[in-house]
Amino acid sequence: MTKLETIKEQKCFGGSQGFYSHESAVTDTTMRFAVYQPPQAQHGPVPVLTYLAGLTCTEETFTIKAGAQRLAAELGLMLVMPDTSPRGAGIAGEDDDWDFGTGAGFYLDATQAPWSQNYKMAHYVTGELQDVIDAEFPGDMARQGIFGHSMGGHGALTLHLKNPDLYKSVSAFAPICAPMQCPWGQKAFSNYLGPDRTTWAAYDATELVKANPSPAPILIDQGMADQFLERELYPHLFAAACAEAGQKLTLRRHDGYDHSYYFIQTFLADHLQHHAETLSSG
Amino acid sequence: MTKLETIKEQKCFGGSQGFYSHESAVTDTTMRFAVYQPPQAQHGPVPVLTYLAGLTCTEETFTIKAGAQRLAAELGLMLVMPDTSPRGAGIAGEDDDWDFGTGAGFYLDATQAPWSQNYKMAHYVTGELQDVIDAEFPGDMARQGIFGHSMGGHGALTLHLKNPDLYKSVSAFAPICAPMQCPWGQKAFSNYLGPDRTTWAAYDATELVKANPSPAPILIDQGMADQFLERELYPHLFAAACAEAGQKLTLRRHDGYDHSYYFIQTFLADHLQHHAETLSSG
Repeated sequence: MTKLETIKEQKCFGGSQGFYSHESAVTDTTMRFAVYQPPQAQHGPVPVLTYLAGLTCTEETFTIKAGAQRLAAELGLMLVMPDTSPRGAGIAGEDDDWDFGTGAGFYLDATQAPWSQNYKMAHYVTGELQDVIDAEFPGDMARQGIFGHSMGGHGALTLHLKNPDLYKSVSAFAPICAPMQCPWGQKAFSNYLGPDRTTWAAYDATELVKANPSPAPILIDQGMADQFLERELYPHLFAAACAEAGQKLTLRRHDGYDHSYYFIQTFLADHLQHHAETLSSG
Repeated sequence: MTKLETIKEQKCFGGSQGFYSHESAVTDTTMRFAVYQPPQAQHGPVPVLTYLAGLTCTEETFTIKAGAQRLAAELGLMLVMPDTSPRGAGIAGEDDDWDFGTGAGFYLDATQAPWSQNYKMAHYVTGELQDVIDAEFPGDMARQGIFGHSMGGHGALTLHLKNPDLYKSVSAFAPICAPMQCPWGQKAFSNYLGPDRTTWAAYDATELVKANPSPAPILIDQGMADQFLERELYPHLFAAACAEAGQKLTLRRHDGYDHSYYFIQTFLADHLQHHAETLSSG
């Protein structure tokens, strides 16, 4: 494992908010991530909650905008915030679009050149980043959860459904629920995974839950004034698939809330409580 | 009064987070500010708490980074976040320095050309902005408090001490306590107010409190790992002046905390509680 560089650590609610970087063997780039260590971590390992951010975001977005540290310090949860893609891979066109390439890794492992050399965020998050956290931070790696927003909600749902023993709790804010059927997902999947749609189902929460429902209850919050709801998110398709598969799902629809972090912060306490309860009952 | 433009309003904790602009007669520029209206404001006027930000900040800084909406919604407080200076005044050199000019209005009324035409943040915040809030938002203008950070902590202390009937509660995070004696203050005051230091005392909290202590208790939090503490902030001088004048002051020093919003958010609940209590006991 390559050396971890500490960019900055700042005291926050009696714990530590840090930003870090390392040379990733998986993505073949420098990767950055943020960690909030609650004060309880000074006395022993604490549960680890990974947050996956949405399109255009970085490891800073949730760290700065969600007001999460106050709640994580109360509940004794470590928060891990990876970046949303490799950066500086040097691929032609990687910075051209806001919904593909840099800032839009979609938490999958690309199979198509030129993306397949670097864009392996599924492998990175579930593998190499796990090793870094285990080696460098006081996390209880047997008690982990995952959640996210929009593209990161898609990431949380799919990585949980494919790795229910690794991430024992899951939730999402306004996730992309059926990427095979929406413009964002179709653009990303056709470029990262190629034209064969049978390979896409491994990264589509609605398809995954039909085949392999999880023992964990799933919590999803969705704002009804979300500008992306109708065109990109499709929570009704995921809810129907959950009902069909016997997957326990709480899908809450909230009038007047949009796609922003003002929406996320409003319902964040319920999510952290959901993870704390699921992880303590396991 | 000129027309208020709504840039954006977003639902947050059952209330509304909004960004606004208007043509200011005081600064002769377009001024921007943010307001958080808690859910309680839908049922009648609520206390109004003005937050003044520090050097380089805007109306967005505290709005995004402090996690304040959760607490304001619990306590039923309206938050008003003005920008830190006029912008686009067209004065030569206004954008050259990060600690003077744009983003560094110091919450005073400049008397020296070319700044005196626009840089009237004291008059703006205590006058014109008051009128806008009174006319356009459900604030209880008889129950107002003021607080701020760094340069904005200086602003909160001085504007309170000069207007104790307007702002009945006050607190500050890492304020510039004695600007006449520190490099930031000396640079700003000599340019905005001129070389006659007798005019500076009207904007120096340590000088003001000696002459006119306030009936309100003052709360100040200061991080001991603050990179600006020794050179710029001088809380010990303010504490000594308060003791001399009989001003009630709670100055808390916190090991390991720096000058950032990770520090501010850690102690923010105590500040909002301080204002809520002071305003309800008035």
